[in-house]
Amino acid sequence: MSGLKYRNRHVVQTYECDVQKEMTLPALINAMVETSGLQSHALGNTNEFMNDLGLAWIIIQYDITINRMPTRREEITLETEALSYNRFFTYRAFRAFDEAENLLAEAITTFGVMAVETRKLTTVTQELVAPYQAEEIRTMRRSPKIQPVNPEKATSMPFRVRYLDIDGNMHVNNAKYFDWIINSVDVDILRNYKMKSISIKYEKEVGYGNVIESRVSFEEMEDGALRTAHVIENGGGNACVANIFWEKR
Amino acid sequence: MSGLKYRNRHVVQTYECDVQKEMTLPALINAMVETSGLQSHALGNTNEFMNDLGLAWIIIQYDITINRMPTRREEITLETEALSYNRFFTYRAFRAFDEAENLLAEAITTFGVMAVETRKLTTVTQELVAPYQAEEIRTMRRSPKIQPVNPEKATSMPFRVRYLDIDGNMHVNNAKYFDWIINSVDVDILRNYKMKSISIKYEKEVGYGNVIESRVSFEEMEDGALRTAHVIENGGGNACVANIFWEKR
Repeated sequence: MSGLKYRNRHVVQTYECDVQKEMTLPALINAMVETSGLQSHALGNTNEFMNDLGLAWIIIQYDITINRMPTRREEITLETEALSYNRFFTYRAFRAFDEAENLLAEAITTFGVMAVETRKLTTVTQELVAPYQAEEIRTMRRSPKIQPVNPEKATSMPFRVRYLDIDGNMHVNNAKYFDWIINSVDVDILRNYKMKSISIKYEKEVGYGNVIESRVSFEEMEDGALRTAHVIENGGGNACVANIFWEKR
Repeated sequence: MSGLKYRNRHVVQTYECDVQKEMTLPALINAMVETSGLQSHALGNTNEFMNDLGLAWIIIQYDITINRMPTRREEITLETEALSYNRFFTYRAFRAFDEAENLLAEAITTFGVMAVETRKLTTVTQELVAPYQAEEIRTMRRSPKIQPVNPEKATSMPFRVRYLDIDGNMHVNNAKYFDWIINSVDVDILRNYKMKSISIKYEKEVGYGNVIESRVSFEEMEDGALRTAHVIENGGGNACVANIFWEKR
């Protein structure tokens, strides 16, 4: 059993595509997350409603599987579904389908509720989740364990948080982290491999003007796939950790 | 007299907006330019057709006026119009309108044709422009003169060209330059002023991995407006120059 779904259409724009003429991961994530904003708006659970309560939804983790990235001018359907919730988290799926309804990609997402003033997580109340009709669960969802960066093999690249990286809530858009992560990967991997799955866990906010370090190490798996391990470091702490599994094109 | 128009609708997405919840200039330019790609495609003048000729359209200059930037979730109409052409350049307008058909912004754009192999400009042939039914002119369009950066007052910020900044033609998307330009401006200006007009001239391509310097100086005008002068420097040469006029919010 799960909660309400919401769907909308999206044509992949030229400027959303990379060297391979495939939609970039940050562009796909942005388009996916927009659907949950549209669903919330349609259900009256607007940003303004959350603001009035002094609360904000924040994304804690994505577990993404990619069957095929959509390509330039392809018309895709984006779907979001409220899956379940417990006292601390809500779980939501984002999916992209091609015109024949083949699943292109799915992102299972863990949301938390932040008290804006303290910027700390707070409990998930009935009032917040009722509109989505998702199932209440007593357990935490199991996510793939994120393997740490191998410090002996790691390379690193600095990125400055730019003015246009921050949004109306003075946050860095969560898709921007994918930009820092992907752009730190060796160009030979980017050109010759494609992403099959990604897990990313957000641990601490980064702010305007911060210079983060995007560290990466990679390991070859037995089946010829690659696993890259990532950490975004900010002022001595970890802003997020991630793993990406890649297979040869 | 001018040539064919093409229109399409666009809903401003959350992730296209800045701190002010207004569409960013790079996002607006990207959405505008997509319309000319759609028009060309509809007229059979596709990227593939250009590729077969060993040619590519490149943007040489934008002269942009902004009446009001569209805001989050606003539904806008984007229009492109082939204006005129001469032996070396074609001129095209991009416009954004709100739901009441008020003009939000207009970008008069100078295009050239590049021979892909030599990466040099070549002449504009009848074959290339005929589908757009624009007027042939004997003169060059006059553009506002771009004032240079004042070296005594300039500040500078480096930007590395990232993998996700380059497109299927190994180009840096022309809207990315706006990112480098805007992000080099003092945050007090960005927060307290809004852009009224922008002129940008592209002079030389930048490539993947290049570290460009985005230099800026500003000057207060008599009417209380500001003018910023910009240059993107790359390995000793100028990749582009620009001026932006700002007025207080």
